[in-house]
Amino acid sequence: MARIALDAMGGDHAPLATVTGALLAAAELDPAHSILLVGRSALIEHTLDDVLRGEHSALAAHRARLQVVDAPDVIEMAEKPSSAIRTKPNSSMMVGLRLHAEGKADAFVSAGNTGAQMAASMVLLRLHEGIKRPAIATIFPTAKQPVIVLDSGANVDCSAAELVQFARLGAVYAHDVLGRANPAVGLLNIGEEPEKGDTVSKEAHALLAQSGLHFVGNVEGRDLPAGHNHQGPIDVVVCDGFVGNVLLKFYEGIAPLMVGLLVKGGIDQDRIMTALAQLDYSTHGGAPLLGVRGVSIICHGRSSPRALKNAIKVAVQAVENRLDEHIGKRVDGAAGGAAA
Amino acid sequence: MARIALDAMGGDHAPLATVTGALLAAAELDPAHSILLVGRSALIEHTLDDVLRGEHSALAAHRARLQVVDAPDVIEMAEKPSSAIRTKPNSSMMVGLRLHAEGKADAFVSAGNTGAQMAASMVLLRLHEGIKRPAIATIFPTAKQPVIVLDSGANVDCSAAELVQFARLGAVYAHDVLGRANPAVGLLNIGEEPEKGDTVSKEAHALLAQSGLHFVGNVEGRDLPAGHNHQGPIDVVVCDGFVGNVLLKFYEGIAPLMVGLLVKGGIDQDRIMTALAQLDYSTHGGAPLLGVRGVSIICHGRSSPRALKNAIKVAVQAVENRLDEHIGKRVDGAAGGAAA
Repeated sequence: MARIALDAMGGDHAPLATVTGALLAAAELDPAHSILLVGRSALIEHTLDDVLRGEHSALAAHRARLQVVDAPDVIEMAEKPSSAIRTKPNSSMMVGLRLHAEGKADAFVSAGNTGAQMAASMVLLRLHEGIKRPAIATIFPTAKQPVIVLDSGANVDCSAAELVQFARLGAVYAHDVLGRANPAVGLLNIGEEPEKGDTVSKEAHALLAQSGLHFVGNVEGRDLPAGHNHQGPIDVVVCDGFVGNVLLKFYEGIAPLMVGLLVKGGIDQDRIMTALAQLDYSTHGGAPLLGVRGVSIICHGRSSPRALKNAIKVAVQAVENRLDEHIGKRVDGAAGGAAA
Repeated sequence: MARIALDAMGGDHAPLATVTGALLAAAELDPAHSILLVGRSALIEHTLDDVLRGEHSALAAHRARLQVVDAPDVIEMAEKPSSAIRTKPNSSMMVGLRLHAEGKADAFVSAGNTGAQMAASMVLLRLHEGIKRPAIATIFPTAKQPVIVLDSGANVDCSAAELVQFARLGAVYAHDVLGRANPAVGLLNIGEEPEKGDTVSKEAHALLAQSGLHFVGNVEGRDLPAGHNHQGPIDVVVCDGFVGNVLLKFYEGIAPLMVGLLVKGGIDQDRIMTALAQLDYSTHGGAPLLGVRGVSIICHGRSSPRALKNAIKVAVQAVENRLDEHIGKRVDGAAGGAAA
């Protein structure tokens, strides 16, 4: 049984997209799970009424599974994170995360201000012992199985030891949420050979080789869309948040470019979208902020109801598979010098 | 009049692709230009015979424009650059670059071992005064005009001052070879705001803002395929060679993934390739190694005859527009403290 707190005010299309996503999730999830809609309660109730009067009227039976928790303030998408979390303790972001921190919810999901969610998660949930910095773990669709890339934007100027921590976090996530047995972990780099790369990559390669993880060596840019490197399939790719973020946004930008050219070339857009469905990020919903005590799922600001529904399902899976507990064991053990 | 030395033995499909590419280039270029095919002369002559007996028989009239220069050795694609250039002074790579260094050719083009080409170019051509490290300038096709990304793999652990040098080199190249007036230079980063990014990016942003270049601020991953950032169109994007190389290879890998999915979705491959023609790297042929004294064009190992033809044409354009002389003036001036 999982209780998911959803930031109903977060994202470019909130609260319509969040409320609709919550209804869609309630319809698909086992009735044991519940969803807390956190935000301006009058607006949320009003939006629920609207959605259920419209095309989603079939979902009316699931309304009872949603509980509304009032939070009068909203952190805007462009607000400076540090001041926003200080000056808006009653925002949907802060209230939702506090519910989780106080054990009244088992996970938190938001499509709101990413910087604020990271800062608030660190303040309210705190980090696991031994973890220096949390990492955003994003799913990259590939020609084969999806691959987890972390860090995809929480940190820059990472040390080699931090990259190894990301590898441990990503491996637990790949196991618990994606169901990968003995996940293959690779290091994003500019060549196959261990001696390739910048100073941090070379050091990280050496540390990963003796980390006890299933380390499969360097992963080049072209290996990512393929889903495998020279050694075989990859489940987790570790990198500094600078390159991870550039790559993630590049990936998001390249699909519209290609689709635009194909449509201009006279190919039917629906056929294109159907063929490329497996590249749609909304299938995967959200990216967890790994390393904090708890489950904090970061969604794209432009998230659709479907993306939010899938993010809620990711959160449920993380709770059911005890991701947080497993991360705690793995990183505390490793920090204490035990074998990974 | 330009004399282009082509490494006839370089690349996965050499000498067939190089010889054919040279014939195609000769057919398109003004007769004042000439091409030197550097490599094993008997093999090159034999390949020329074969090509002209086959589908390219119409090119026979252009054979006289090609001169064969013998070089008995070949640097293999996987050889270690530093030892290869030391132990194989009579390789096609070294002989071709020496022709350029001695003024017997005006440019050098190779699809061979990239590391060896970089090392040999630095040894034989040497760097312009004031330049610390050369940079590979790659063309990224976008939704609008192609954008130059540098460095795309020659350097890692770059300093902010080095990124500013790359910006100067890229701006001259964009002007001289791509014909961009007052090229817009952006800094690859993880957010729009000047304070975003890692330590080096923040410092580079400040230096670029006062460099005298037409600096348009940060460029995010998603801005690259779009060809513009929040300020407008971009011509040149500056980054460390680590992220540039990862991005370039990712770009190369993503197209086959998407094309594969579209074909699986039942869309005709020829229609797809026609629609996506502007993304084909072979249109742009080669990437110059900027910063060396001279013109050294690096081609993809898998270069087709068409890619090699276009690389030769890029080399001719660089010579005709006196790229090397302009780079010398620009960077020597800047190094001496004069306004850029």
